[in-house]
Amino acid sequence: MRIGIMTSGGDGPGLNAVIRGAVRKGARAHRVEFAGIRDGWRGLLEDDISPLTTYDVRGLSGRGGTILGTSRTHPYSGGGPDRMREVLAARGIDAVIAIGGEGTLAGAARLADDEGLPVVGVPKTIDNDLDGTDYTFGFDTASAIATESIDRLRTTAESHHRCMVVEVMGRHVGWIALHAGMAAGAHAVLIPEFPVPYDRIYRWVRSAQDRGRAPIVVVAEGFVPEDRGEAVAAKGDARDGRPRLGGIAEELAPLIEEATGIETRSTVLGHLQRGGSPTAYDRVLSTRLGMAAADMAVERAWGQMASLDSTEIVRVRMADAVDRLKRVPRSRWDEMQILLG
Amino acid sequence: MRIGIMTSGGDGPGLNAVIRGAVRKGARAHRVEFAGIRDGWRGLLEDDISPLTTYDVRGLSGRGGTILGTSRTHPYSGGGPDRMREVLAARGIDAVIAIGGEGTLAGAARLADDEGLPVVGVPKTIDNDLDGTDYTFGFDTASAIATESIDRLRTTAESHHRCMVVEVMGRHVGWIALHAGMAAGAHAVLIPEFPVPYDRIYRWVRSAQDRGRAPIVVVAEGFVPEDRGEAVAAKGDARDGRPRLGGIAEELAPLIEEATGIETRSTVLGHLQRGGSPTAYDRVLSTRLGMAAADMAVERAWGQMASLDSTEIVRVRMADAVDRLKRVPRSRWDEMQILLG
Amino acid sequence: MRIGIMTSGGDGPGLNAVIRGAVRKGARAHRVEFAGIRDGWRGLLEDDISPLTTYDVRGLSGRGGTILGTSRTHPYSGGGPDRMREVLAARGIDAVIAIGGEGTLAGAARLADDEGLPVVGVPKTIDNDLDGTDYTFGFDTASAIATESIDRLRTTAESHHRCMVVEVMGRHVGWIALHAGMAAGAHAVLIPEFPVPYDRIYRWVRSAQDRGRAPIVVVAEGFVPEDRGEAVAAKGDARDGRPRLGGIAEELAPLIEEATGIETRSTVLGHLQRGGSPTAYDRVLSTRLGMAAADMAVERAWGQMASLDSTEIVRVRMADAVDRLKRVPRSRWDEMQILLG
Amino acid sequence: MRIGIMTSGGDGPGLNAVIRGAVRKGARAHRVEFAGIRDGWRGLLEDDISPLTTYDVRGLSGRGGTILGTSRTHPYSGGGPDRMREVLAARGIDAVIAIGGEGTLAGAARLADDEGLPVVGVPKTIDNDLDGTDYTFGFDTASAIATESIDRLRTTAESHHRCMVVEVMGRHVGWIALHAGMAAGAHAVLIPEFPVPYDRIYRWVRSAQDRGRAPIVVVAEGFVPEDRGEAVAAKGDARDGRPRLGGIAEELAPLIEEATGIETRSTVLGHLQRGGSPTAYDRVLSTRLGMAAADMAVERAWGQMASLDSTEIVRVRMADAVDRLKRVPRSRWDEMQILLG
Repeated sequence: MRIGIMTSGGDGPGLNAVIRGAVRKGARAHRVEFAGIRDGWRGLLEDDISPLTTYDVRGLSGRGGTILGTSRTHPYSGGGPDRMREVLAARGIDAVIAIGGEGTLAGAARLADDEGLPVVGVPKTIDNDLDGTDYTFGFDTASAIATESIDRLRTTAESHHRCMVVEVMGRHVGWIALHAGMAAGAHAVLIPEFPVPYDRIYRWVRSAQDRGRAPIVVVAEGFVPEDRGEAVAAKGDARDGRPRLGGIAEELAPLIEEATGIETRSTVLGHLQRGGSPTAYDRVLSTRLGMAAADMAVERAWGQMASLDSTEIVRVRMADAVDRLKRVPRSRWDEMQILLG
Repeated sequence: MRIGIMTSGGDGPGLNAVIRGAVRKGARAHRVEFAGIRDGWRGLLEDDISPLTTYDVRGLSGRGGTILGTSRTHPYSGGGPDRMREVLAARGIDAVIAIGGEGTLAGAARLADDEGLPVVGVPKTIDNDLDGTDYTFGFDTASAIATESIDRLRTTAESHHRCMVVEVMGRHVGWIALHAGMAAGAHAVLIPEFPVPYDRIYRWVRSAQDRGRAPIVVVAEGFVPEDRGEAVAAKGDARDGRPRLGGIAEELAPLIEEATGIETRSTVLGHLQRGGSPTAYDRVLSTRLGMAAADMAVERAWGQMASLDSTEIVRVRMADAVDRLKRVPRSRWDEMQILLG
Repeated sequence: MRIGIMTSGGDGPGLNAVIRGAVRKGARAHRVEFAGIRDGWRGLLEDDISPLTTYDVRGLSGRGGTILGTSRTHPYSGGGPDRMREVLAARGIDAVIAIGGEGTLAGAARLADDEGLPVVGVPKTIDNDLDGTDYTFGFDTASAIATESIDRLRTTAESHHRCMVVEVMGRHVGWIALHAGMAAGAHAVLIPEFPVPYDRIYRWVRSAQDRGRAPIVVVAEGFVPEDRGEAVAAKGDARDGRPRLGGIAEELAPLIEEATGIETRSTVLGHLQRGGSPTAYDRVLSTRLGMAAADMAVERAWGQMASLDSTEIVRVRMADAVDRLKRVPRSRWDEMQILLG
Repeated sequence: MRIGIMTSGGDGPGLNAVIRGAVRKGARAHRVEFAGIRDGWRGLLEDDISPLTTYDVRGLSGRGGTILGTSRTHPYSGGGPDRMREVLAARGIDAVIAIGGEGTLAGAARLADDEGLPVVGVPKTIDNDLDGTDYTFGFDTASAIATESIDRLRTTAESHHRCMVVEVMGRHVGWIALHAGMAAGAHAVLIPEFPVPYDRIYRWVRSAQDRGRAPIVVVAEGFVPEDRGEAVAAKGDARDGRPRLGGIAEELAPLIEEATGIETRSTVLGHLQRGGSPTAYDRVLSTRLGMAAADMAVERAWGQMASLDSTEIVRVRMADAVDRLKRVPRSRWDEMQILLG
């Protein structure tokens, strides 16, 4: 048996550990061979595939990024499933492990369920927005980097008696903002799931300021203030209710400064959150997911993905996991709010 | 209402975050007051107690150690439950949050269940050996420190073509060795739950060496080789089957060197694993546990402890959790073994 | 004797270690008292001053920021030297240690030399742009943070086959870009002292790309491409040769992408470089500078500052140090260029 | 021209950056070729040598250890200089860059000066004990790791009201203990250059304890208490004035506990200080030294080594540098003592 493995979509810490886990498990427990597919679906469509041995995955558990490269190529582009079948046959590949986020897994589910292609999945989303798994790998590392960054920013904010607005990843969900905000003791946490009006933000900032703290505002990139549309309308601004180009942190900082009178600066963590060596937590999770994916490929569990349930790695139908976002639930938001201000 | 809070037994990263979480939640959601009990049961028995305000817990989520101090004083010493009742009454304290490990919680359970004292618990064990919770706080930080240390040691081992034996915490269970060993790509992982004979260890070391790697052996402090008794008997050694004073790593290193011919060094991480700022993961877990404990105290859930179940904080009877160790199960050991050698 | 101490201008890692060093040395070796002046010259002009004891400076060597606060208040505002004389007399303060950058030290020099005020200095500039000292404290920490950040960004750049433009501090000089760029193995380093034309930048990027690397461009915030004026003129752009609001990294990224065809992203490290715990190097340097400043105050070395010469702390006339920037010299730039591309 | 390069003696952070700097500079500025000599003098004596290209040194600036391996083989063993001449001739190698510590450089000096071999040097000693250079690379990283470790240990010491004894590297000199002790705010620093009697150590510990601190004792591995001989004689102990097998920290801890009544624990940092990614400071220093060494080889500066003088890389005769240890001078010790207790 020969298993192809690929990483697709945005990269994240832990991809290499998944690859290593899968190859080690496959090679040692099942005596199967591996092939590395370059840059996600692109490599499968363009036949950019090379052998991948246990030698190639040595020392990978702690290395950031992905040795296989990644791209956002769509699986139904450039020949689509038919072309894939050709390539798999030509290469003698009997199974594909697709590691990727919502888009990748939706594609993988369709390929497996509708086209009959031999695909299993491993979920990867730094934002932790994928249902069907307790946590996704990469999320812990991103939260750790954000937390460490906020720790740093706090010291300079306190020295200058400033408010600091920190923008973290999270286009649709606020998990990183929630965890990093709680871990670093933020005074305001702003997430897409629970839009609050400007006044609430200012109140949190003032409350921290009144107690002599340098207010720390953590905002997910996808957050939009509840009354942003009205504010824009009232000001006759052309902006249409969406954060402007510079991002939400840059938009909020001057507004907070104006409303509260406290000097306010913004920082956008951006790509820093994706990079570097994964945390021990993510390395363990990734390795286990990779090992489980090798088992799934050998057992021909097409259309399934490896996922975390409490302390166990289990199997979940990809089609069930990809149809909805995992949002921060009301209970976690209520818990967080007690700590704000 | 006034809630006393204390930390007892060995310290660990996250204790301060639990304290902060409890005080913030209690003060803000329930309008209760807090009192800080110094050095665990000692402070309760000797009436070493001071007010603890939200001001006192500012900025604590990322600070290592415990601002309340800790000790190993036994709750049934120095007056015991009767003396505690006196002190609680005199101080007007209506509930006690006890944060500690197996011993502390066993004491807390007995005080609550048998003596009718108003005690709730928060489990803390760096070793992660407590049943009734998915993970305990402090464990992630310890695993992270061990992983980072092994990453470091690997570079010097490779330069010198040496084998490196790293001793991590884990007197009765091998969770830290398991996680750090998997995260850092160790070639041998030795844990108390699954004693292996010397020859297996040497085989793992030789296998790594044969592939050109610098063999990394991670050993939990409580590991004893399966055939240690025989080895000792055969050599006419006075050592009686227990690791000698210097610890298991120091004992193994020269044996590995002798058996495999590869120069071998040992490092004992020791207290480093307890210290310093907790990881983001542990800060979030600790904060949530502290907040839940404040709720439990207010709701008079005596004899219960806050614990982690998947992604939720739940309540568990302390008496049920403390009666057995949470050992590394066979399935996790089998999973690990595939990666060794 | 009573010594006032203050921090002024932008904050930086190591300020607290200077304060601690000065107070410990003064209290223990000279038996003098200290007073903490809040927020730089503001505290001196507004009499915002409190006693500062060895107790207050406990554990400060590793803490970022400044416990005394800082501001950009000008020493000749609000009453100026006359007002300072009044406040110093009223408080019984016989000497002032002023810790700050070019502006602060220029003010301190004038106060000491022209007004006869009892002021000594400690140089602080993260940018390392101050003459009269080998290095300033804070610079090593900022370079370390920038280096670690570039290490992180490299992994994500490589996974996506992208070029990454990283903007670091350095309005007038390129020391941080030079050191972080060399430490992290950047393919292009752009500093204000040596403007290069766009084509050179693109050539460096292409050269790295041709060798299969993800090109890393490190740019100091004050860098302006040599032919920027022409480019702007040719395009009929209204921009007048200065980097646009978003910063030089944001300006360069799309130009590099257009010219080289490689997808390019930018990251601005900003305030992250000022924050957090200082490196061991900066802690040692800061502590020693603070200790030397206490000696200088006791010995009435008005108008002098403590500075680093090789491995020794020496005294330098502030007026001599502040009249010119310490730029990256041609020799260091030539050395760097060999490594680029 | 072809230049051989080797690393010899104990490894340390920055070796790879030196190699990369030399190869990049030689290849790009001088168009010379490189050959990698495996495991120090062993590779030269046993002709274990391979080509080393710029491709081989990609991404090395931040990697710990040495890709060339190292050993403690003596240059006058196994054929010695005559054999080396043969190998160099056979391989067409015109110059050798030897990177190593006191022993390596003493050998290199003799080979160059007495035997006429074409050897230049780069000094490497983590202990910073080599004269003729301000600092050696690796020292900053080791000091940083020790500082971070002491920061960690402090939190657990404070929680338990314990004294912590931390043993750092430094067989003959106390530079790491001095810098890490100052950076981390230690209460006692014990270095070989300035032996103090037991009573002074106890006094420092008690003084910290009296002020409510958890006493931190940093001891260089080569420290011997001034009156150790007497203590041993008085106790009728067989130990002859040298630290016993377990190291000085293990020896001191129970004595401190007995004398002061404070519970005392010891930690030996050992190999951790050699491992892992070098600091930004060490990467810059190493890269510059490597580049300078390539120049020296091209310019046939036999018998010289690259060294740091203030901010410049200069050349120093190896024979002059290796004949004496660089000890911590009295002035630095006096400076340190003010901060102790």
